[in-house]
Amino acid sequence: MTAVVTPGLTFGDWMQATQAGVESALEQFLPASDVIPHKLHAAMRYALLGGGKRVRPLLVMAAGELFEADAAALARAACALEMIHVYSLVHDDMPCMDDDALRRGKPTVHVAYDEATALLVGDALQSQAFTILAEGAAIPPGRQMAMVRLLAQASGSSGMCGGQAIDLDSVGLSLSLQQLEQMHQLKTGALLRAAVILGALAGKDLEPADMASLDAYAKAVGLAFQVVDDVLDATADSATLGKTAGKDAAANKPTYVSILGLEPSKALAEQLRCDAHAALAPFGDKARRLRELADLVVQRKA
Amino acid sequence: MTAVVTPGLTFGDWMQATQAGVESALEQFLPASDVIPHKLHAAMRYALLGGGKRVRPLLVMAAGELFEADAAALARAACALEMIHVYSLVHDDMPCMDDDALRRGKPTVHVAYDEATALLVGDALQSQAFTILAEGAAIPPGRQMAMVRLLAQASGSSGMCGGQAIDLDSVGLSLSLQQLEQMHQLKTGALLRAAVILGALAGKDLEPADMASLDAYAKAVGLAFQVVDDVLDATADSATLGKTAGKDAAANKPTYVSILGLEPSKALAEQLRCDAHAALAPFGDKARRLRELADLVVQRKA
Repeated sequence: MTAVVTPGLTFGDWMQATQAGVESALEQFLPASDVIPHKLHAAMRYALLGGGKRVRPLLVMAAGELFEADAAALARAACALEMIHVYSLVHDDMPCMDDDALRRGKPTVHVAYDEATALLVGDALQSQAFTILAEGAAIPPGRQMAMVRLLAQASGSSGMCGGQAIDLDSVGLSLSLQQLEQMHQLKTGALLRAAVILGALAGKDLEPADMASLDAYAKAVGLAFQVVDDVLDATADSATLGKTAGKDAAANKPTYVSILGLEPSKALAEQLRCDAHAALAPFGDKARRLRELADLVVQRKA
Repeated sequence: MTAVVTPGLTFGDWMQATQAGVESALEQFLPASDVIPHKLHAAMRYALLGGGKRVRPLLVMAAGELFEADAAALARAACALEMIHVYSLVHDDMPCMDDDALRRGKPTVHVAYDEATALLVGDALQSQAFTILAEGAAIPPGRQMAMVRLLAQASGSSGMCGGQAIDLDSVGLSLSLQQLEQMHQLKTGALLRAAVILGALAGKDLEPADMASLDAYAKAVGLAFQVVDDVLDATADSATLGKTAGKDAAANKPTYVSILGLEPSKALAEQLRCDAHAALAPFGDKARRLRELADLVVQRKA
């Protein structure tokens, strides 16, 4: 497989080409709807295909470009991360969690199908993420094993699921800025960090200095992502977001906006964007896509 | 790590020692209740510890003994399988699925805690299964990768989750014996087969002939397990089973007993026990524990 390097493309063209490539790869890494059980596979495809900003896959691809990673290994890592992310959305939208009817501009899975199917879609997407990461044969098994380990750790109770649990328990509570940050570092930060590191690992074994730089970048981008999410939740409408706006305030959930206020939250996001750029300094021009993604995360409108 | 060989123990003593060892390993492979998030970790421990027959771990250990497998790798495989199994029970018991209040003689997780926590417990246990399988360093990474791949495939939409989906869709339908068998091969068979093969892989790379024998054994034991489950569901009481008895008939679910009748189902289970023994013939005395487990599966009373 050839390595992925795209110096000639504008960021917009690169993003569009990458999103199209990820969509096509996701399509191939899911069982077809005519494979038994039909309904489950159709619902998995409904949940995963045809929507979403694909932020995590974009981070995988950008980090892969930094180390000229193998294209097949990158595609698997990007799709595995998106599967974990989407399974968490499907479960999070269920009546016993956020009880949300709209996601990516479409009815949520339990609305379009039923609750039992939504539960199984999430469960099966998690398994499928590990399946496609484990089935690849493009890189040495020791490094592949490290990628599986990282994805599993980032997904579980000391990562994404743990953040969800803290989020649930914090409804109606008054969190400190530090507690809010800790919650988001688990809930969204762990998986965004995994995206950056998995993309890099698809290229090579990481030196401690590389790891430290990428960690600092991922931490800044992960927090910026959440701060901007909170700003958008408070300022944008549902049609623009493709999901229910204002729901955090309605659910009495602590957010950056509720703790810091709107303008200081925007300033914090801009500061984190600068931190992300600074963390990439050692990589020079090769980190261009990662820089552009930090800008995108902070400057997006949805 | 020393290999596991236990020729001197009676089956009862071996089983008891193995169950105790698995309980202790599960305890170590779960985050403590005082690690944040406390409630999620406490609920994960509630779901996983202190109950269950540990059939899948016993199969892992018995298959490992056949090839004198590494003890540390076996413990990880056994616990990973039990985590996948228990996560599926936690989700299966939820109101949108079987809506069951009793499991292993205790209130189910969504009853003892709440639905959102039960959802996250299942999600996090699945991640934890892959984490502990991926964290081990006792065997070559290529073989370890094969174990992760097998567990992921057996758990997902072409394995356990797929079987659950078919099961849900078959309520009230009249299935043929062949359709019922196909459903159970996914729903419970895939994970029982994974237990046998993972245990063996913890010992060595498998020759095709070994794989074929173990596959035949696992297929027979897996089906026998389900046939006996159906017999017990129709004949035993809830106190003996530690879960709600008679619920398949109450839910109008097709079972071996409803399709074949009670006595022919018992005869089928005995036939499958003999098939399992026959499949082990090439291994001679070293397969003793696997033979004893086939007997246990068929002759159990709960």
